[in-house]
Amino acid sequence: MTTPVTFASAHSWVDSASAPGCDFSLDNLPFCAFESASGEVCLGVGIGDLVFNLRQGVACTSLSMLPAIIKTASAASFLNELMLCGAERIHALRCGLHALFAATASKDDIATARPLLSPISTTRFCLPVDIGNYTDFYASIHHATNVGRLFRPDQPLLPNYKFVPIGYHGRASSIQVSGTAVTRPSGQLKAPDTAAPVYAPCRQLDYEIEMGAYIGVGNPLGHTIPIEHASQHIFGLSLLNDWSARDIQSWEYQPLGPFLSKSFMTTVSPWVVPAEALAPYRVAVAKRPPDDPEPLPYLSESEDAKAAYDIQVEVHLLTQAMRAAGLPPRKLTAGNAKDLYWSFAQMVTHHASNGCNLMPGDLIGSGTISGQAETSSGSLLELTRRGSMPLQLGDGESRTFLEDGDEVIFRGFCERPGLPRIGFGECRGMIQPPHGGGAA
Amino acid sequence: MTTPVTFASAHSWVDSASAPGCDFSLDNLPFCAFESASGEVCLGVGIGDLVFNLRQGVACTSLSMLPAIIKTASAASFLNELMLCGAERIHALRCGLHALFAATASKDDIATARPLLSPISTTRFCLPVDIGNYTDFYASIHHATNVGRLFRPDQPLLPNYKFVPIGYHGRASSIQVSGTAVTRPSGQLKAPDTAAPVYAPCRQLDYEIEMGAYIGVGNPLGHTIPIEHASQHIFGLSLLNDWSARDIQSWEYQPLGPFLSKSFMTTVSPWVVPAEALAPYRVAVAKRPPDDPEPLPYLSESEDAKAAYDIQVEVHLLTQAMRAAGLPPRKLTAGNAKDLYWSFAQMVTHHASNGCNLMPGDLIGSGTISGQAETSSGSLLELTRRGSMPLQLGDGESRTFLEDGDEVIFRGFCERPGLPRIGFGECRGMIQPPHGGGAA
Repeated sequence: MTTPVTFASAHSWVDSASAPGCDFSLDNLPFCAFESASGEVCLGVGIGDLVFNLRQGVACTSLSMLPAIIKTASAASFLNELMLCGAERIHALRCGLHALFAATASKDDIATARPLLSPISTTRFCLPVDIGNYTDFYASIHHATNVGRLFRPDQPLLPNYKFVPIGYHGRASSIQVSGTAVTRPSGQLKAPDTAAPVYAPCRQLDYEIEMGAYIGVGNPLGHTIPIEHASQHIFGLSLLNDWSARDIQSWEYQPLGPFLSKSFMTTVSPWVVPAEALAPYRVAVAKRPPDDPEPLPYLSESEDAKAAYDIQVEVHLLTQAMRAAGLPPRKLTAGNAKDLYWSFAQMVTHHASNGCNLMPGDLIGSGTISGQAETSSGSLLELTRRGSMPLQLGDGESRTFLEDGDEVIFRGFCERPGLPRIGFGECRGMIQPPHGGGAA
Repeated sequence: MTTPVTFASAHSWVDSASAPGCDFSLDNLPFCAFESASGEVCLGVGIGDLVFNLRQGVACTSLSMLPAIIKTASAASFLNELMLCGAERIHALRCGLHALFAATASKDDIATARPLLSPISTTRFCLPVDIGNYTDFYASIHHATNVGRLFRPDQPLLPNYKFVPIGYHGRASSIQVSGTAVTRPSGQLKAPDTAAPVYAPCRQLDYEIEMGAYIGVGNPLGHTIPIEHASQHIFGLSLLNDWSARDIQSWEYQPLGPFLSKSFMTTVSPWVVPAEALAPYRVAVAKRPPDDPEPLPYLSESEDAKAAYDIQVEVHLLTQAMRAAGLPPRKLTAGNAKDLYWSFAQMVTHHASNGCNLMPGDLIGSGTISGQAETSSGSLLELTRRGSMPLQLGDGESRTFLEDGDEVIFRGFCERPGLPRIGFGECRGMIQPPHGGGAA
């Protein structure tokens, strides 16, 4: 495979693509799936504040030379077929899209493309990928330490953490696209001072801000993925909200891990930002403190690999009261994916290290992205010390955990002087009471 | 939905269906998928020692009156479309198949069906279901206690066990059909007396005998499944081998549960025995000891529900040495699924109790089926006390865990005087060394 290539920065004839703070510049060209005006689910590409219908768009001259396999895959309703085409063919597709939307595009191409663009603001997005398998990791040492301290003050970090990229199988069926309402789950809750649990609506509903990596080309069962090839298996990245019911979790999770505390729903952003677009923002993984063990050889990456992603992530909260008062969402925290202890490449290699077959469209969550500072804690569990220190929202409200009507909004972007901004859009979800009534 | 109906016992014109010890009598009619002579993957039905091509078989007169949805679903390569047809339509299909294979069938029907039968012994089976999501439970209290005793002698059973049907998300992509070779996984192994783990081939490879339940009709996201409806969501049952790498597991599993110790492979039997065929073998769940808490109301079933299955399960082992000497497999243990502490109905209701959407084709493993007696321990971990008491195989060999060349064979069947035998066939897997050599 070739090394990902980025484009020389250029202007687009789509004016909004060059606006300051625009997530979807000509260098990004993220993929999505959406419901077209005729009601069919199509693949799309983001440019400025518009979405381009890729299914119909392959008719444009700039895309006409693409291999048939790409054209066929572009007509699907999920990205999976594109994902298994491999980095070189995706590069070819992106080159065609870049030519099509660059200011230098032919009049003919612009004329063909223009009617295939529609405003993002009124688009109904669909899940972009048919996610066969979902695995959630625990790659932030700050998150693992913060959470561990709440549950095991004497041993916040377990002995395996610095050797094993800890992860668990998640539930694929309940992954939904941004904007889908989150029904408050019910489950077994047990107070420390009672003998038996009760089945009731969750009282400690939380978010976790994560990045999700989608697998492109997979590996056959029984074979592994060497660390130096791992990045090539990553098709692209999205924002991910690993909604968590803390009270259900603390009672159910021994000895086999989180289950119903997570499987009620997981939200992903509509946009899959191609790995290639993120290449300029790849940085070396932070050096481990001198007392930490080096990764085992099968997980050991050279610094040149630049396996970390410099992605800024933000959590915003819009409560029902804020909405009623016409207030904007309040920013709670901001973190960065480069602070993860384990890179996505290490997660991929570890995942396949037992011969487990990764498949095109599989989703790998990073685990909650928390930094060292409290202002970068990626969950309310950490921010409010398991509910013991309510968070003041500035409008007179406070929160320990999420309430019905709360909307959680994640944003993510790469930004550095001299480089084009690469944004991830938003990942949103609003809490609604359980079906059959009974707010928590 | 109607209550499952069983057939009045009858003879079949397929002689082998009435042979003593036959798994696939006229009352069973289990489903499978197989590669036909022309190389296409077809759905099939087991009768005696033969498999019937269901795709072509819908042309038989006895099946001609079936609704179009059943005929279309019968032409698929996986059972999923049939699974979502619901119990009534599956009952209609089974009535048609029963009429077709009964001794009373018309000469015409027999003439049409006969060329569509082929010997099971030479059939190449495929995975019968496109398994979207796989969840593995831990429903045997004997297994949980045995394993707990090895790892936590002072507290074998955790406080949540008698309240929560404990389960975790498993890996769907690596589920394979019986007969697929099992590549010995590698992973991080850490001896108690070393500071750091090594990455090496697993040395404590084990099996776990389980029953798997396939979901038929599912539930929408955010909605639950009341316990009194849970059984109706179960399409059928299979044998399941939850291969486990014990040394990988003991190092990786804290705090998020088993991951790579399981995901290298899971084996299912080719045959899915319809829930309807098992109705005569449904029995009341064993009464809980008086000191045990009653299940919470949402998991509470009446005795009339007969939510347990009286299924006998056996583990057999065929080593390379036995094979070379022409010896038959050796029976290691025998257990019964009715000894489970939690019923499949309770697992289904618990799984959906947070609103998690179960989907047609989802697989639910029971967890290792162990009884109170040592002769019914469902894993080598239990049988050999984590390898401390080697098992003598009778031919001069012994085992602590599985060795390369060992073939593990599960059998399962329902049998009671006055009732037709309902068998599950076999679930087999042979251990092979890691790719790139390096036997453990």
